[in-house]
Amino acid sequence: MSCAKHVLTLATINPNVIQMQYAVRGPIVTRSQELEKELQSGEKKNFQQVVKCNIGDCHATGQKPITFFRQVIALCSYPPLLDDPNFPEDAKERARSILAGCAGESVGSYSISTGVVYVRERIAEYIKRRDGISANPANIFLSNGASEAIKAVLLLLSSSQPGPDRVGVMVPTPQYPLYSATISEYDAYQINYYLDEDNNWNLNVTELERALSEAKENCKPRAIVVINPGNPTGQVLSRQSMEDIIRFVKRHGLVLLADEVYQFNVYHPKITPWTSFKKVLHGMGPEYADSVELASFMSASKGYMGECGFRGGYCELVNFDPDVQAQLFKYLSARLCPAVLGQVMIGVICDPPRPSEPSYDLYIRQRDSVLADLKEKAQLATDTLNGLEGVKCNAVQGAMYAFPQIRLPPKAIAAAKVCMFFAICFFISPYSNLLTQASLIHLASHPTVLWFALQEKGMEPDFFYCLSLLEEKGICFVPGSGFGQNPDTYHFRTTILPSVPVMRRVMADLADFHKAFLAKYSS
Amino acid sequence: MSCAKHVLTLATINPNVIQMQYAVRGPIVTRSQELEKELQSGEKKNFQQVVKCNIGDCHATGQKPITFFRQVIALCSYPPLLDDPNFPEDAKERARSILAGCAGESVGSYSISTGVVYVRERIAEYIKRRDGISANPANIFLSNGASEAIKAVLLLLSSSQPGPDRVGVMVPTPQYPLYSATISEYDAYQINYYLDEDNNWNLNVTELERALSEAKENCKPRAIVVINPGNPTGQVLSRQSMEDIIRFVKRHGLVLLADEVYQFNVYHPKITPWTSFKKVLHGMGPEYADSVELASFMSASKGYMGECGFRGGYCELVNFDPDVQAQLFKYLSARLCPAVLGQVMIGVICDPPRPSEPSYDLYIRQRDSVLADLKEKAQLATDTLNGLEGVKCNAVQGAMYAFPQIRLPPKAIAAAKVCMFFAICFFISPYSNLLTQASLIHLASHPTVLWFALQEKGMEPDFFYCLSLLEEKGICFVPGSGFGQNPDTYHFRTTILPSVPVMRRVMADLADFHKAFLAKYSS
Repeated sequence: MSCAKHVLTLATINPNVIQMQYAVRGPIVTRSQELEKELQSGEKKNFQQVVKCNIGDCHATGQKPITFFRQVIALCSYPPLLDDPNFPEDAKERARSILAGCAGESVGSYSISTGVVYVRERIAEYIKRRDGISANPANIFLSNGASEAIKAVLLLLSSSQPGPDRVGVMVPTPQYPLYSATISEYDAYQINYYLDEDNNWNLNVTELERALSEAKENCKPRAIVVINPGNPTGQVLSRQSMEDIIRFVKRHGLVLLADEVYQFNVYHPKITPWTSFKKVLHGMGPEYADSVELASFMSASKGYMGECGFRGGYCELVNFDPDVQAQLFKYLSARLCPAVLGQVMIGVICDPPRPSEPSYDLYIRQRDSVLADLKEKAQLATDTLNGLEGVKCNAVQGAMYAFPQIRLPPKAIAAAKVCMFFAICFFISPYSNLLTQASLIHLASHPTVLWFALQEKGMEPDFFYCLSLLEEKGICFVPGSGFGQNPDTYHFRTTILPSVPVMRRVMADLADFHKAFLAKYSS
Repeated sequence: MSCAKHVLTLATINPNVIQMQYAVRGPIVTRSQELEKELQSGEKKNFQQVVKCNIGDCHATGQKPITFFRQVIALCSYPPLLDDPNFPEDAKERARSILAGCAGESVGSYSISTGVVYVRERIAEYIKRRDGISANPANIFLSNGASEAIKAVLLLLSSSQPGPDRVGVMVPTPQYPLYSATISEYDAYQINYYLDEDNNWNLNVTELERALSEAKENCKPRAIVVINPGNPTGQVLSRQSMEDIIRFVKRHGLVLLADEVYQFNVYHPKITPWTSFKKVLHGMGPEYADSVELASFMSASKGYMGECGFRGGYCELVNFDPDVQAQLFKYLSARLCPAVLGQVMIGVICDPPRPSEPSYDLYIRQRDSVLADLKEKAQLATDTLNGLEGVKCNAVQGAMYAFPQIRLPPKAIAAAKVCMFFAICFFISPYSNLLTQASLIHLASHPTVLWFALQEKGMEPDFFYCLSLLEEKGICFVPGSGFGQNPDTYHFRTTILPSVPVMRRVMADLADFHKAFLAKYSS
């Protein structure tokens, strides 16, 4: 509780920090951690373990690292291993080249602020192979995960003007909540545009025009975020859509922020192929190719490697004013450099074993096995979800998530509002076991609860659904309200990351729960 | 150049980004990188290589990593090495424990936002051994270097109020420029207090009172930063000083940010022992110990290990309102987690080999050798500097820097102003070789130069001194103006990190240069 004796209280700290929310690690996840502790301490539950489907964290759900990447990391960390005959020659060659590019030949030295030159050169070559268009390492900067790069570019284009001069950033609904959290932090203005759920989460320009024109009296629109493949929505944009977006961007003088971190996660490349915004832009001729300002983000955390903990990421800037780019790089210099082993990780991901090299076969086998599993689980999730009463799920064409719509009975919606006070006790730790003990009045009289009640307008029905699922089955989803959704629709996001057998069990448990939930609130 | 065709120009981007400066990687360092390239391409210079004394980057100057720490990192990165008999058992034990604390037993998974619990427990134990006072892992959060933690705490206590309601943060002069850069970024108000150079950079409360009272009409003072051991100043605060500061902090309702990243770098522990602010606070009785809000920062980058590239760091919060702490941790959740191997690094630094373990002897030998070298170089630097005409350098009691005052002849000061245009061509790359070719008029007519000239009021004389030294001798120092200094005094900062033989050469070259410089501008 805030007491007058503190200098920093909820009344004196930065209100933007209080304002920001990040649902992927919100109260339901906190509650799931408590449930894990309760299980460990021997409490009896309906389930033996909590399955975390809240976050795209591949290794946490048992996926194994790609051997080659980790060998390069170990060699760079502990160079005496370069003499170990158990390590393959191609991994040693990569490690030697990287170390030669580090000051003092050590990953313990700072790199320059934008990242090790050798690594940026490998990334530029990867982009060239991918798009067939040259890339300049000087326009690439490395970051602690894609998140840091996204935050830096958003900071660059924000400004602390108040009122209608605030900078506006167009963000999809649903979106990945890093965007809304960062916009809150910077006190910028969030312009929501809705993805078309009835057309497999397609992005249409009529909606972009509507959102922009309504927002113009509240802010100065400066940028648009497009996530492709979509998070949490899993769609892969068509080339036509992308061209329409680029024309829109140019017409309205915006900067295009392309979140392309799931570029390796495309499950039907022949039917819904993924293309980078840079390539599409380049194909539209010099009128666009030489002028539209594009920042494209990529991460070591997703794809088939899922190396989240390394916090590797990069951003390529296209058509940025060199003076502006210099200001961004100057800004980055105060954080010195991204973690060097994260740089190494994203570097080797962009420079994997080649067909002639000794690690190639194992690398391909491991990569393809992960991607084949993900494809199978994408199908399993959509099939199961679409088989449930009142649930509709678009095809998971890419990324790592299903985002089904759930039609909730009116009684469940009413129950959600009533249950707000009960819910509070779930995620305020000292009261987490009060649900069965305490009366509503007892609870509501507690100052923490009262404070919380004053802050909250009520409990979102999809939050109520996800919390009930967690308590009943130990399955941790994130409610759609954490990502944004069309008013009066309800969703949740689940990853497709648990192993195939666990994923089957999750889907079966969900089906059980869902039936019981509907039965309870439809009677 | 900014052209109308860009959406983002110097006129439209965030002015706080333009405002911020970070001298440790400023124009002189950029010029040193160009000189390195010129040397590589075969250009003749007065020197064979550039010696970078601008940044506390130990491994870049040839210092070797501590074997044990790197073994643990390699084992965590590539767990098949746990079966390798060449790795010592204590390193394996640490790696196994850390992996058991990571989701999926992989350093490739995200940790919780505040960092791996096991690592925070080790840090809490270290703090307890250090201070004799218990530490709670729940009050510790991990970060990408200390920088990220410092920025997060400053963000928490800042707010975007304009005018006299802006949050004020007291910062020493001279200071480490991360503070001024961050305060610019957040548009907070920087309250400068001066360290007393004549008393070995001591911090006296009369000066704190002066600075605070003068600032009160411009801002709401909320926090004070104290760097101990000092950067760039190298002093170690006495317990008496620290108690005075704590009383000041309490009297004026401030939060104390203690930058204690150099806590291992103390060269005369019997004469000038280092004590943590937490310990001093605790010793002052409950009136202080139970109320003063303190955030203490520590890093993997400094000390005897110098593992900058890992970006490991932590912050311990003392007496923070739990609700405020929860808001800070929520804020941190949007960046997911610090690089996990950086967490592992700061974790093993706090849990090094114990006397009974196989790696102990080697660890102690390596650690003590680095610290003995640093002590020798600290002495070498102060002795040489104090032997130069017009140079005065306080004892380097701790940290990694000497920060001498240099008395510059009036002609040199005048030359600095005149040479501004020439200097510009040094650090705007395409023009870096124009100095010998182009006339001043030709240069000044270039729009980039004109723009730059309009931004700058003139060249600081100490910048001129450092730039001349770099061009003549290939030695890269940072001018005192980048850290802040008393008006009309001039300084530079040099690290004491190059190896003993290189450091001797640097000092000899500096002596040569300094004599010639004085001769040229005193005539």
